[in-house]
Amino acid sequence: MWNSAILSWLHIAMEATATLAFALSGLLEASRKKLDPVGVCIVTGLAAFGGGTLRDVLLDRRPFVWVAHAQWLWVLLALCIGAMFFLRTRHLEVTERAMQWPDAIGLGLFSASGTQLALAQGLPAIVAVLMGVITAAFGGVLRDIVCNEIPRALHDHSPYAVCAFVGGWVLVGATALGWPPEAAMATAAVVGAGLRVIVLWKGISLPRWDG
Amino acid sequence: MWNSAILSWLHIAMEATATLAFALSGLLEASRKKLDPVGVCIVTGLAAFGGGTLRDVLLDRRPFVWVAHAQWLWVLLALCIGAMFFLRTRHLEVTERAMQWPDAIGLGLFSASGTQLALAQGLPAIVAVLMGVITAAFGGVLRDIVCNEIPRALHDHSPYAVCAFVGGWVLVGATALGWPPEAAMATAAVVGAGLRVIVLWKGISLPRWDG
Amino acid sequence: MWNSAILSWLHIAMEATATLAFALSGLLEASRKKLDPVGVCIVTGLAAFGGGTLRDVLLDRRPFVWVAHAQWLWVLLALCIGAMFFLRTRHLEVTERAMQWPDAIGLGLFSASGTQLALAQGLPAIVAVLMGVITAAFGGVLRDIVCNEIPRALHDHSPYAVCAFVGGWVLVGATALGWPPEAAMATAAVVGAGLRVIVLWKGISLPRWDG
Repeated sequence: MWNSAILSWLHIAMEATATLAFALSGLLEASRKKLDPVGVCIVTGLAAFGGGTLRDVLLDRRPFVWVAHAQWLWVLLALCIGAMFFLRTRHLEVTERAMQWPDAIGLGLFSASGTQLALAQGLPAIVAVLMGVITAAFGGVLRDIVCNEIPRALHDHSPYAVCAFVGGWVLVGATALGWPPEAAMATAAVVGAGLRVIVLWKGISLPRWDG
Repeated sequence: MWNSAILSWLHIAMEATATLAFALSGLLEASRKKLDPVGVCIVTGLAAFGGGTLRDVLLDRRPFVWVAHAQWLWVLLALCIGAMFFLRTRHLEVTERAMQWPDAIGLGLFSASGTQLALAQGLPAIVAVLMGVITAAFGGVLRDIVCNEIPRALHDHSPYAVCAFVGGWVLVGATALGWPPEAAMATAAVVGAGLRVIVLWKGISLPRWDG
Repeated sequence: MWNSAILSWLHIAMEATATLAFALSGLLEASRKKLDPVGVCIVTGLAAFGGGTLRDVLLDRRPFVWVAHAQWLWVLLALCIGAMFFLRTRHLEVTERAMQWPDAIGLGLFSASGTQLALAQGLPAIVAVLMGVITAAFGGVLRDIVCNEIPRALHDHSPYAVCAFVGGWVLVGATALGWPPEAAMATAAVVGAGLRVIVLWKGISLPRWDG
């Protein structure tokens, strides 16, 4: 009982931290692009919730996270307004490096949860894994599209979606082996996040295609 | 009876005028970008109906306005073909200035109606207001994304979404106070549109973020 | 019996060939844009299935083609990995010219099937035809948006969506005349594809708008 309360609290804390990391990536890009305050809020929200929302539209699931937990919209609004008052781009760039670690946690958590939601709908494994990848990586893709950039996830050669992809397959495998859902989720999230940490730490990059 | 018929007719006339104003913003951008006739029609349609359609996809509502009133698609097609025969970009630029006023009406009307549709689904107030902003402002955002620009609404520092945001909160407040829906809608629309008119008239702009 | 088995096989073979042609257009654009392997897979998948998926989101239909036939995702993954190992951009450019013909088949088939799906939902004719156009042309539009280009379909003056539009109306007309669905579909697909072949063969282009 007591243990499970701690675990549940830990899960919520990690998810909140990871969502903030995603949001800050939007805040930083909005600042670099010299967007106005409206643009800052929209791009920040898109980076934080775009991936999960796109997944839910594709899976025809409602309510979205930011509808079920609408207080998050207030948190993001406060974050954006606070940042515009107190921060400069260089502060955010320092933050960006620090944010790589919670961002890796987000990659692991959100790819595992996206994959599990799709498996629970009875979708094929490859589709479920793709939904995990979309949850983890497409907030950033939408953020970059709106900011008129080729999405970083598609051309920076740093394995991100690939780590989410592997994490998703771990969940599929563990589920097929009959593991309890919590154990399967935790393992998949740790593998996804761990791979990303190794990627960042060792500076691993994807092979180039000399097309 | 007679009064309500006039009001209803007035409402339809304002909505049609505002939709045309949105459509013309798409026509003008398509012309500036030298799109071909297919691009002109698609960008015009996106500017006119993109915001409401995105809201309806998010709220899982059907039918879309342009499905329930499919004659609008013929009107837009005729508008685009007529414009390509008879207009030059400079005509459209003159029109753009004139169109700011019906566009402000659209901002008021569509933010109020988008907010109300979301409230009627029992969504939280902040989500409902966001849906109003999406209805009013995201046709233009989609228009600019397709034309490979950073959306004007996110970086031109002219309060647009902000006026829609305030209008939406007026609707939420009036509804919470138990006003009749027509009165709440009308007040919210007038406040949203009126703020935009003041913004244009006084040349008010959003604060800069020296990020 | 025997005839209908051949026809059904022929239909599947044509649809598969056309989907591959769409996928290759994504592969080529990803290669030109120097995307990384993740970007190659995502843009290829978007070009292959983006149009049908957008149509299904708008029509609120599930499952998507790539969910019902998830083996296609494996085929695309294998195609992308194989291409990155064995192909160069110049190979793909040769392929692109050869791919114009199966791409024209895709235009005909997918505009006819998209139009028919919408008619079967009881939607107005103009909306149904638009759904056919979206099915045939919007995979390419999404591919180009993600690659940070103005979509080719909107500004290259080569009639593509227009051929899909005419094919859609042929289906609407044949259905209104009470033709059996197979005959209506086949005729519409042949007209749409045939028009595109004539366009490519004669080098027909859309009129310019000296805006």
